[in-house]
Amino acid sequence: MNIILVDKLEIQGGRVLLVDRRAKHLIKVLQVQAGDTVRVGIIDGPKGRGKVAALCAKYPFQVELEVQFAEEMAEKPPVDLLLALPRPIMLKRIFSQAAALGVGTIFITHAQRVEKSFWSATLLNEEEYRPHLLQGLEQAVDTRVPEVSVHERFKSLVEDVLPEKIKEYSHLLIAHPGSPATLKTLIPERPGRILLAVGPEGGWIDSEINRFVECGFKSFSIGERILKVDTAVVALHGRLSERRESLS
Amino acid sequence: MNIILVDKLEIQGGRVLLVDRRAKHLIKVLQVQAGDTVRVGIIDGPKGRGKVAALCAKYPFQVELEVQFAEEMAEKPPVDLLLALPRPIMLKRIFSQAAALGVGTIFITHAQRVEKSFWSATLLNEEEYRPHLLQGLEQAVDTRVPEVSVHERFKSLVEDVLPEKIKEYSHLLIAHPGSPATLKTLIPERPGRILLAVGPEGGWIDSEINRFVECGFKSFSIGERILKVDTAVVALHGRLSERRESLS
Repeated sequence: MNIILVDKLEIQGGRVLLVDRRAKHLIKVLQVQAGDTVRVGIIDGPKGRGKVAALCAKYPFQVELEVQFAEEMAEKPPVDLLLALPRPIMLKRIFSQAAALGVGTIFITHAQRVEKSFWSATLLNEEEYRPHLLQGLEQAVDTRVPEVSVHERFKSLVEDVLPEKIKEYSHLLIAHPGSPATLKTLIPERPGRILLAVGPEGGWIDSEINRFVECGFKSFSIGERILKVDTAVVALHGRLSERRESLS
Repeated sequence: MNIILVDKLEIQGGRVLLVDRRAKHLIKVLQVQAGDTVRVGIIDGPKGRGKVAALCAKYPFQVELEVQFAEEMAEKPPVDLLLALPRPIMLKRIFSQAAALGVGTIFITHAQRVEKSFWSATLLNEEEYRPHLLQGLEQAVDTRVPEVSVHERFKSLVEDVLPEKIKEYSHLLIAHPGSPATLKTLIPERPGRILLAVGPEGGWIDSEINRFVECGFKSFSIGERILKVDTAVVALHGRLSERRESLS
């Protein structure tokens, strides 16, 4: 936890009283004392500093912070993800890692090779997935929560949602093993925002790829190695970031 | 499991009898039948094909494969890692992800900010970590097992081991938040082999960085976000790979 994230409703007269895992972390891990200063951010808002005004160092832990916010929220990250719903344990890790790496929106949809049972995962409720996103932000010192956009019907995503959405992007990309193209060939100049589609274990089927191509997506490969979805998401984000920054 | 890995000692007269998790995977997940062909590789050896000669589809699962190996082992990957010992649960994931991404050698050493208790982890025994490396190779369809080189004393690593080892590399890099350099500035031309050092949670301390710099390492940053070690390893590997391939 490299920043303490608070909801703006928690701030009363320039102070926040923490009584949950954040208080415990400040006391047990960071071992703060009265007068110490820590990084604080408002969820989907600015970043700033919190001065420890009072604390109870024994269970039940409490920390009261005097907070000030002088640093604007970071801009929306330039990469969005479109995922075929992964198994819940993997999706949990992807939520926190994507939030840590910086992702604007995470679209989630069905695909032929997604197990139907994954759609009953409680993790698809905002109440369940939001803590994983916040953990990633706490790690990366960010306050901007990635949007999550869930579309159980693939057809409705590609026919109703994407045609409007894709106007935001300069590049629509699908990672697809065996494709002859690379990021270098597809992104020759400084790109705008990018939407990156990553398939399920076993990959998208041909008709799904075709639907994406009809929407304007281009496929590329990063080599012959087959990666798990969570590894692939982080490795691809790294590659896209490197490609983008090398062209600045 | 996208390839079945076997030890060369398991091959008898062109056949392998599988009775462990590999047999179970072939039967329960891949649902093979007699006559089917699957990808097989010899650990640290060539890749090839295995034809299902016989099987027992009920517990205790058994699969007998007739094997042939026509494809040479992949070359040693161009990136090696040097890690400050991470906590065991994270190291386990790094072993399988690094093997999946392709890494030649994983050096592990101590650092000021590594908890001493991590050194008593059973995971540091080859018998314990090797299965995680093999899982990564099974995922990525590779047979070359990354070397693991453990040096509990940092001083001995930098004074006795690195001076000889570093001759193999064209680039010695440390990921270090706040450094003004980037991969683009440090790797302007097609690189040879690269050794990438990734610090512990909280980072290397200044004197450790200085020792690395004396050995010839150069530090670089990938931005302000603070990443967990396992996320950082995969993201950095992706960035290095993209940088390398864009210069080919």
